[in-house]
Amino acid sequence: MSTEGRTWGGRFEGAMHDLTRDYTAGMDRDLWEFDIAGSIAHARMLGRQGIIPPADADAIVRGLERVRERFRRGEVAWRPELEDIHTHVEVLLREEIGEPAGRLHTARSRNDQVALVNRMAVRAFCDDARAALRDLIAVICDLAEQHAADPMPGYTHVQRAQPITLGHHLLAYGEMLLRDRDRFTDCRRRTNVMPLGSGALAGAPYPLDREMVARELGFDTISRNSIDATADRDFVAEFCFACATTQVHLSRLSEEIVLWASSEYGYVRLPDAFATGSSIMPQKKNADVAELARGRAGRLIGELTGILATLKGLPLAYNRDLQEDKTYYLAAGRTLIPTVQIFAAMLPALEFDLPRMREAAGQGYSLATDIADYLVKKGMPFREAHAVVGRLVREAESRRCELNELPFELYRSASSLFEPDVLDITVDAALAARDIPGGTAPARVREAARELRDLLS
Amino acid sequence: MSTEGRTWGGRFEGAMHDLTRDYTAGMDRDLWEFDIAGSIAHARMLGRQGIIPPADADAIVRGLERVRERFRRGEVAWRPELEDIHTHVEVLLREEIGEPAGRLHTARSRNDQVALVNRMAVRAFCDDARAALRDLIAVICDLAEQHAADPMPGYTHVQRAQPITLGHHLLAYGEMLLRDRDRFTDCRRRTNVMPLGSGALAGAPYPLDREMVARELGFDTISRNSIDATADRDFVAEFCFACATTQVHLSRLSEEIVLWASSEYGYVRLPDAFATGSSIMPQKKNADVAELARGRAGRLIGELTGILATLKGLPLAYNRDLQEDKTYYLAAGRTLIPTVQIFAAMLPALEFDLPRMREAAGQGYSLATDIADYLVKKGMPFREAHAVVGRLVREAESRRCELNELPFELYRSASSLFEPDVLDITVDAALAARDIPGGTAPARVREAARELRDLLS
Amino acid sequence: MSTEGRTWGGRFEGAMHDLTRDYTAGMDRDLWEFDIAGSIAHARMLGRQGIIPPADADAIVRGLERVRERFRRGEVAWRPELEDIHTHVEVLLREEIGEPAGRLHTARSRNDQVALVNRMAVRAFCDDARAALRDLIAVICDLAEQHAADPMPGYTHVQRAQPITLGHHLLAYGEMLLRDRDRFTDCRRRTNVMPLGSGALAGAPYPLDREMVARELGFDTISRNSIDATADRDFVAEFCFACATTQVHLSRLSEEIVLWASSEYGYVRLPDAFATGSSIMPQKKNADVAELARGRAGRLIGELTGILATLKGLPLAYNRDLQEDKTYYLAAGRTLIPTVQIFAAMLPALEFDLPRMREAAGQGYSLATDIADYLVKKGMPFREAHAVVGRLVREAESRRCELNELPFELYRSASSLFEPDVLDITVDAALAARDIPGGTAPARVREAARELRDLLS
Amino acid sequence: MSTEGRTWGGRFEGAMHDLTRDYTAGMDRDLWEFDIAGSIAHARMLGRQGIIPPADADAIVRGLERVRERFRRGEVAWRPELEDIHTHVEVLLREEIGEPAGRLHTARSRNDQVALVNRMAVRAFCDDARAALRDLIAVICDLAEQHAADPMPGYTHVQRAQPITLGHHLLAYGEMLLRDRDRFTDCRRRTNVMPLGSGALAGAPYPLDREMVARELGFDTISRNSIDATADRDFVAEFCFACATTQVHLSRLSEEIVLWASSEYGYVRLPDAFATGSSIMPQKKNADVAELARGRAGRLIGELTGILATLKGLPLAYNRDLQEDKTYYLAAGRTLIPTVQIFAAMLPALEFDLPRMREAAGQGYSLATDIADYLVKKGMPFREAHAVVGRLVREAESRRCELNELPFELYRSASSLFEPDVLDITVDAALAARDIPGGTAPARVREAARELRDLLS
Repeated sequence: MSTEGRTWGGRFEGAMHDLTRDYTAGMDRDLWEFDIAGSIAHARMLGRQGIIPPADADAIVRGLERVRERFRRGEVAWRPELEDIHTHVEVLLREEIGEPAGRLHTARSRNDQVALVNRMAVRAFCDDARAALRDLIAVICDLAEQHAADPMPGYTHVQRAQPITLGHHLLAYGEMLLRDRDRFTDCRRRTNVMPLGSGALAGAPYPLDREMVARELGFDTISRNSIDATADRDFVAEFCFACATTQVHLSRLSEEIVLWASSEYGYVRLPDAFATGSSIMPQKKNADVAELARGRAGRLIGELTGILATLKGLPLAYNRDLQEDKTYYLAAGRTLIPTVQIFAAMLPALEFDLPRMREAAGQGYSLATDIADYLVKKGMPFREAHAVVGRLVREAESRRCELNELPFELYRSASSLFEPDVLDITVDAALAARDIPGGTAPARVREAARELRDLLS
Repeated sequence: MSTEGRTWGGRFEGAMHDLTRDYTAGMDRDLWEFDIAGSIAHARMLGRQGIIPPADADAIVRGLERVRERFRRGEVAWRPELEDIHTHVEVLLREEIGEPAGRLHTARSRNDQVALVNRMAVRAFCDDARAALRDLIAVICDLAEQHAADPMPGYTHVQRAQPITLGHHLLAYGEMLLRDRDRFTDCRRRTNVMPLGSGALAGAPYPLDREMVARELGFDTISRNSIDATADRDFVAEFCFACATTQVHLSRLSEEIVLWASSEYGYVRLPDAFATGSSIMPQKKNADVAELARGRAGRLIGELTGILATLKGLPLAYNRDLQEDKTYYLAAGRTLIPTVQIFAAMLPALEFDLPRMREAAGQGYSLATDIADYLVKKGMPFREAHAVVGRLVREAESRRCELNELPFELYRSASSLFEPDVLDITVDAALAARDIPGGTAPARVREAARELRDLLS
Repeated sequence: MSTEGRTWGGRFEGAMHDLTRDYTAGMDRDLWEFDIAGSIAHARMLGRQGIIPPADADAIVRGLERVRERFRRGEVAWRPELEDIHTHVEVLLREEIGEPAGRLHTARSRNDQVALVNRMAVRAFCDDARAALRDLIAVICDLAEQHAADPMPGYTHVQRAQPITLGHHLLAYGEMLLRDRDRFTDCRRRTNVMPLGSGALAGAPYPLDREMVARELGFDTISRNSIDATADRDFVAEFCFACATTQVHLSRLSEEIVLWASSEYGYVRLPDAFATGSSIMPQKKNADVAELARGRAGRLIGELTGILATLKGLPLAYNRDLQEDKTYYLAAGRTLIPTVQIFAAMLPALEFDLPRMREAAGQGYSLATDIADYLVKKGMPFREAHAVVGRLVREAESRRCELNELPFELYRSASSLFEPDVLDITVDAALAARDIPGGTAPARVREAARELRDLLS
Repeated sequence: MSTEGRTWGGRFEGAMHDLTRDYTAGMDRDLWEFDIAGSIAHARMLGRQGIIPPADADAIVRGLERVRERFRRGEVAWRPELEDIHTHVEVLLREEIGEPAGRLHTARSRNDQVALVNRMAVRAFCDDARAALRDLIAVICDLAEQHAADPMPGYTHVQRAQPITLGHHLLAYGEMLLRDRDRFTDCRRRTNVMPLGSGALAGAPYPLDREMVARELGFDTISRNSIDATADRDFVAEFCFACATTQVHLSRLSEEIVLWASSEYGYVRLPDAFATGSSIMPQKKNADVAELARGRAGRLIGELTGILATLKGLPLAYNRDLQEDKTYYLAAGRTLIPTVQIFAAMLPALEFDLPRMREAAGQGYSLATDIADYLVKKGMPFREAHAVVGRLVREAESRRCELNELPFELYRSASSLFEPDVLDITVDAALAARDIPGGTAPARVREAARELRDLLS
């Protein structure tokens, strides 16, 4: 039990219980870079405003720079008795410059200091997520152009529905991920608000230049209410939501990669670099990356749930429950960003079996809708056409053949509108027919890829 | 068991099991307005483009208008065998106009139709949420101006920390709710994308004018990828997140209202109109609205979790799991919006006991920080000042008195920097001292209220 | 605005706001049966103990029986101004018997009354869930015996791993569901505790015979602490957890049914009675029941999350937040139980394509492990054998053939331990070899089905 | 990029990408003790059954014991290229004994090995949780007996409702925690099933003595289905649920400790050993332990949500998603168990201000129900009595006095049943009157504490 390093000892006589020290320990040791940058900006401003002697301000800034160097060189050992990263930095600063270190905390509370560091950290994660998403979307655009005309079965209900192109399919993910990127942009905007000067909760009784600090640290604006600035963590929840949604999107692609790599589908061969084997079954080659990405969507849903449940019902302003905020955004960012990165590396390495995909595209009665549309175009109401073709499918199924293997007489007896050209309906014709914005016609797919790429920049 | 009303019977011989009918029944009966509006726009466009005979298009439009009237007059009984609202509308249309009704589903799938209705419904909820939030924030601004100079204790860790004003405290919620409103704006933008023309998943093989439909229905833009448009529900998740975050914010205010209305606090008297009693304890007057609002934050966290877990790992495109999307956004919207509305009505009706709040503001050593700042301004480093005052607090606590009840000699012996004017530090002085942007000084609070109100419009 | 039906009006002057009435309305209208049964038992006991005049007790009991009849015949209209089901019953009782109705609430609070009804409702759901699970497990045992020797590929990572039998596969679900049933049993035990007599929170100041009430209502025991009895809802959370886990288990089976019904797998033909079609694609036959069951696992995860988040941080004893408890257990029970029931009906109706499953069982190098084990049995360490066979797989893959299509010389050159009998390793041999408890050998599967069935009774 | 340490390299030509290595890395390094114990039991059995040469089995056992020593002494450095703890142990074993190490994996797959380790780890956590809960409940029993007759206000809706005793209040938590302990017992029972021998999914083709392994490792029974044994993680979800529920219970106590320690309540003085201060406000002494415990309930709700979402929709058998299971149970156990432990240390150290609690117990009209009951005992129906007293409360409130400060004439004019002895109703009388099982009468509280303590053993 020790009192060293405590920033709040005055009124306390008894020592802290070891259990308490462990139980209240922060998870913030990796955030030193943000804490030091924030302290440097604060000290400079204090000096400029004459709130502390300019010479002390200079000493503090130089001292903090030396402390930063020690962190960068990995020379700082973690000392559990020092509670959190803020105390570490302050103690190290005192080692460097002695007495003036005590002036750094002027006009600042742990509450607004912590809010600052959290916002800087979440902002950095947003930037990383946006950069990783841009790379991944660019990869998807490349693949989509490359496979703009390569047919594959489009699925609904995990059943072959209508032919699409592989490029069109991949672009669906491009669209999802673009919205995800937008969400990180929105989240960054709401995060990028400078809270320092809020004090413990009421604002600081000093003539601070908050805008100067904001500028120095790259914030768009300063917080408008000191209580809100120290008490709310909705930006953490929003970040966790953006991460969870993105990972859920990638979990859907992961599910598909897992299916495509199976014997049943056989659409994709996994590159050795992104697969693992089995300790017992020598033949196995598993899509572990995709499976883990899928599983980790569960983790991110949990992180989001956790932070919201933590915030629920907390009275204002700061409560220690909020210390846990870091565990949520760190877990979220450290799960999501590597997932996006590994997909950007893995997708181009997938070997698609295009002939097999093309063959599958025409099977499973996937052209039935086009035959119904054929009748519609000859004047039959769609509902009626749908029923006519439904009966043809039943017939084909009982003969265990495809629709284009049925004799033409069967078509004709089903409806006199059928002409022999009904048998000309092919996968490529079906693709080409969907020639409207958003459709799977190859030209449209190429156009959509270009448009998506344009939106990236 | 019946096949009537099925839109997909052709290939089916056997009847549907009653269990299946019940198990697959939709929850969408309240969405008729959106479905009919969407069908009218679709039919008009089909006629304009010559995809169906213009006369049929006219008949369909007029028929749908009559169906809409029947819904509005409450004349439509729900028929479980008709599965969902879309089938109801189609069957009713057939009752009205007969044969041409069969052409309405031309170039449209249930998949893009459902996506359309969902997007229109979520968009309407976003608008309602934004309007309700605007009203509530305006109420808060009024109250904040009214109470800009009324002191109360500011709390951290549910302990009296420093004096603030009631107006400043309320504005913290104004800020949170403004961000919530922004989130609904962002969500609306991502929702307001017109999916019709996406067909089942591949796009429609007809020369649709998708932009015309979008304009008629008030959409900003059309979807760029037919698979994404029919398969993703991230806009539902985002809406649930915006609702959950808002309700979490209001759960914090609720917790405070519950505390403030207690004997221990005694800050607020609940108006009878917003309170309930006890069936056994005649004296009770409970803040039930606040308690329910707090509890329902749990519900909204659950809705958000549920939709994300539902989406996780689903391969493209549409899967029936997505039918559940409605249960999430309906529950979210119907929980959140009335909560916001009742707060806008209830807050102005709360009777604050301002004298009691003022008295409490000065108790509990809440001016200790200001005394430390007093020393800092005389040149003592903050860390040292903090320790000096901490010892004074311990002394006062052992004498069971407040800080300003300690004899001056004790101050002087604690530090020679103390002058008799230390005893002039009052609640009002402490408030006035926090005169920086975001601070609790009354002038700043008034300014912040004005600024917030400006941001509303 | 009305005060009629209020059970707590005495101290209130003002009327309740309509918003408040709507916002605080209960969701408990379907719980009348439990409320009436509880009130009858309470009244009988009050009369027996002489706490109210026996004649009044008799009148109350007879009156409640008449009220129950009116509910059973559907003659009771819901009146929103009466708040909740308890007030409805009390008002109806007054209509039936007048004055003595006022004595029913003697020695009872809304708080213990609500706790009673909740416990009876959750207990009934547990019983229904257990009965439904028993039926489903029995169905699985039947199918498992029927298919004890029918081979199919066993999958890991959604890739063919080793042959198993269909019966063995189905029994995996039998085991999961048996544990689920155990969880409902455990939950029922912790739920089945009689709370009446706890009053508002402190116990009732009357000589109640709580054991008599417990016996009459089928409770195992009475609650030991009045505060806990009125304030905790962990039994609701536990019920939601048991439901969520069961639905998650069924979501895994659902995923498999969806896959098995696809063209790619082709293991199962869906019966028309449990499938639905597409409004646009005439050929589609979708496993909607399975998809909805899978999706609704998301719903139940959400309900569980919601009730836990609702309970978190609530001080003792009753708070109005708890009114929401009903929404969680009603949604959970009404989602899970029909799912279990429809699976019991659907599973026997699935048409398995056993020849196709048998054929697939031997493909995809699924016998590779058995070949490695062949070497181990001849003395090679497993790790080495694994590597030898891994190289054979790579060779077969490059020749696009199965392992037993490789020439024997390749085996021999890979290891001199290979004899020609290595080519005798077949699917049936592989199955038969796993002849240990828990293994897939057909005799073991039959035995396991018998054992499971025994555990049901 | 390296292939060293891979247990599955045979069919792989290419090296693993570094991103893949990092992305697939396990979180299991702390589980060595379980892995080694399981391997020792497996090796012994293999030798006993003659599946591997007894001499090799002996060598393996001795080698593993040496490896265990190296771990215990902290001599083992983590090597990322070795994937997970299992590979580390195997590689270390090979360093110790060379060649025979390759026989350890005979008749075992990574899948059943991992299942074994998980079950052993969760079992150990259950034991730790049960022990910690026993200690905490015992502490609560002690305190309850000590404070069996010390009055405090009982609260509903965070408002003073009726007097209770502090002992009675604490016992409410004793009851909750006892149910929590039961849940860990149930969870342990379902966890304590030995999965080894299940192979990859189909069972092992060797004459294993699974019962022997189970006995040696302390398992109650062996798994009955090899697919279930390797594919399900419901025991992890159940463990997370038990942890979450317990932490939610403690979050409620935490909320109360936070309130009790406030100036407004003033019921509890925090011991320095379990409190922390503020870096800016010298007077602050915060209940950080309680706040963190409350906040961490959010974490555990998130862990539970995460594991369930991860399991949802996974086809059988093992999928790599399941690797994440460890992150859930490790976080759950490591959060919950220290929380229980610190509460057992902290509760006895709280200094209750008993006089203040007694005084508060009689305030806020908390005896109103007893006055209504007074009328009931004189023959008035409860509903009428409730209204009479409600009016008295309104009167007292308007006079800003307590009920027993109203003149007797007011009582008499409210009802002729009032006699002067109505003014004898005191807090102690109200407590003594609730003399039924579960009630707050001091004798009942002592009895309940004894009963609870008996149930502990």
